[in-house]
Amino acid sequence: MLDFTELSRSYRRALTDDIIPFWERHSIDTTCGGYFTCLDRSGAVYDTDKFIWLQCRQVWVFSMLYNRLERQERWLEIARHGFRFLAAHGMDAEGNWYFALTREGDPLIQPCNVFSDCFAAMAFSQYALASGDRGAAEIALKSYKNVLRRKNNPKGIYTKAVPGTRPLRSFAISMILLNLVLEMEWLLDSKECADQIDTCIRDVTGVFLDRTRGIVYEYTAPDGSHIDSYDGRLVNPGHGIEGMWFLMDIARRMQDRQLIDLAVDAVMRTIEFGWDREHGGILYFLDAEGKPPQQLEWDQKLWWVHAETLVALSMGYLLTGREEFAHRA
Amino acid sequence: MLDFTELSRSYRRALTDDIIPFWERHSIDTTCGGYFTCLDRSGAVYDTDKFIWLQCRQVWVFSMLYNRLERQERWLEIARHGFRFLAAHGMDAEGNWYFALTREGDPLIQPCNVFSDCFAAMAFSQYALASGDRGAAEIALKSYKNVLRRKNNPKGIYTKAVPGTRPLRSFAISMILLNLVLEMEWLLDSKECADQIDTCIRDVTGVFLDRTRGIVYEYTAPDGSHIDSYDGRLVNPGHGIEGMWFLMDIARRMQDRQLIDLAVDAVMRTIEFGWDREHGGILYFLDAEGKPPQQLEWDQKLWWVHAETLVALSMGYLLTGREEFAHRA
Repeated sequence: MLDFTELSRSYRRALTDDIIPFWERHSIDTTCGGYFTCLDRSGAVYDTDKFIWLQCRQVWVFSMLYNRLERQERWLEIARHGFRFLAAHGMDAEGNWYFALTREGDPLIQPCNVFSDCFAAMAFSQYALASGDRGAAEIALKSYKNVLRRKNNPKGIYTKAVPGTRPLRSFAISMILLNLVLEMEWLLDSKECADQIDTCIRDVTGVFLDRTRGIVYEYTAPDGSHIDSYDGRLVNPGHGIEGMWFLMDIARRMQDRQLIDLAVDAVMRTIEFGWDREHGGILYFLDAEGKPPQQLEWDQKLWWVHAETLVALSMGYLLTGREEFAHRA
Repeated sequence: MLDFTELSRSYRRALTDDIIPFWERHSIDTTCGGYFTCLDRSGAVYDTDKFIWLQCRQVWVFSMLYNRLERQERWLEIARHGFRFLAAHGMDAEGNWYFALTREGDPLIQPCNVFSDCFAAMAFSQYALASGDRGAAEIALKSYKNVLRRKNNPKGIYTKAVPGTRPLRSFAISMILLNLVLEMEWLLDSKECADQIDTCIRDVTGVFLDRTRGIVYEYTAPDGSHIDSYDGRLVNPGHGIEGMWFLMDIARRMQDRQLIDLAVDAVMRTIEFGWDREHGGILYFLDAEGKPPQQLEWDQKLWWVHAETLVALSMGYLLTGREEFAHRA
């Protein structure tokens, strides 16, 4: 059996003694604002472009540390440093979030990706909670509304699919909304929040999760049926596992035992499905029918896939006490 | 020393006894027209979508075999099979080539990629030469003009870069034009042809090829200077080597000894630069400054990279007699 107290101590030590000091020391761009995120192992900056996802995640992390771990002024100051840069440079005139900026904050890549708006909403909401800044809360709400508005057409004018030929629904949007709504809860009215959660649970468990196989499909037809095409057969095990722990997190709050069991079963079956039996670890992309995936990088082992899996397994063990979760972790 | 007669026999045997029969047997879609291109090793079709690049390359290959290897009616018939499908379904109302179609020929992915037009021009030109079909020649010319028109804005409305912030020139366009002009030569007037070739040689050797290092940069600033960013530092050794044999091919026709030497030197230095000293083979992407590339698949060994390298080495040896080329091959 896992010793959760020892495990928790060990993760906390890694976070406070290693990871946080590294980013405090090397990532702050004191000249132009915002953060350097392309750092080598020694902390040297090897590229200075500012990707909105990463800028936003760092504002979120330091705000979250302040809100949940310890009220260190230094952490709030680092979050504010990124908040100011993003509020000044991150959005176009309509409030859509760019994908990337130059070091100085000039827009480099257009608002072609709705996840920039997701991560911005999370970052500004968490920062508003830490700082009490009303302006940050307003930007968080506006970005959240952007996500809902673009939900059914996330790439907007940059969509390359010809409309109508093969309409697809994307798991990624429903999945991230599960997490986003919880992050935004304190800013939303409770009816709005409950409705969004209902819709997301219905989509994730009724459309994208294949109940028979216990794996999540990245894309389905609008009616939830599977399409025999590269996208229609695509499974991203790390993504599916991540979505399942978002679902556990919701189910835990709702005390919905059945939903917890559904999510933890899917985690175990997705790990089975995605596991590399020769070398260990979880593969990046797989074809649901065992055909060759289109992505060249399909057989790589990505850090984030394994981080999400550790979260899902720990959470699954805490919620169910099933020994196989501790064993897998 | 390589025995070129034996080498040539061996490649020819592989082509006529193995590769061509495989595609003749398994790739023809007799129901909907066009070709299946997602074939497993046994020849079974695992996906039926029709990607314009691959449809066009197959029309080109079978037309070329007919034109250059042997006047087999069967090969011309296979080329015609793809030509008919593409002429009926491949273009939008303005004559721009889609990126992908469904099995039935419905447009799936918009004309977001100018290389579709390049490969279409090559396919239809080669097919027109084989068949004498005037309609095919007209489509080839129209597609060629599309490429020239879109040369400075190849992604059109699908461009995600914000205009003006960091303008980049792409090696890929100049490189493919070197090859495309030779393919189209019989349809172009000789002044047009010579001018295009001059421009491409000037761009490839004066802008993208770094003379000091002997490697090709994928992107430069409009003035040819290097930009310190992921794209600006990007080297694709296989792409550079391919461009250098296009250049040798031109230089050979022009009997330009200096240009031949420039190209063969660049091939050797690019192989040096891209070589995986631990496992052998040529890496897919590298950063010119030795920083981490952005592409997850950077350290993969791709078949086409090694095929282009074999072409470049054989051609380099034929043109210079330098033993190191035969040794490398």
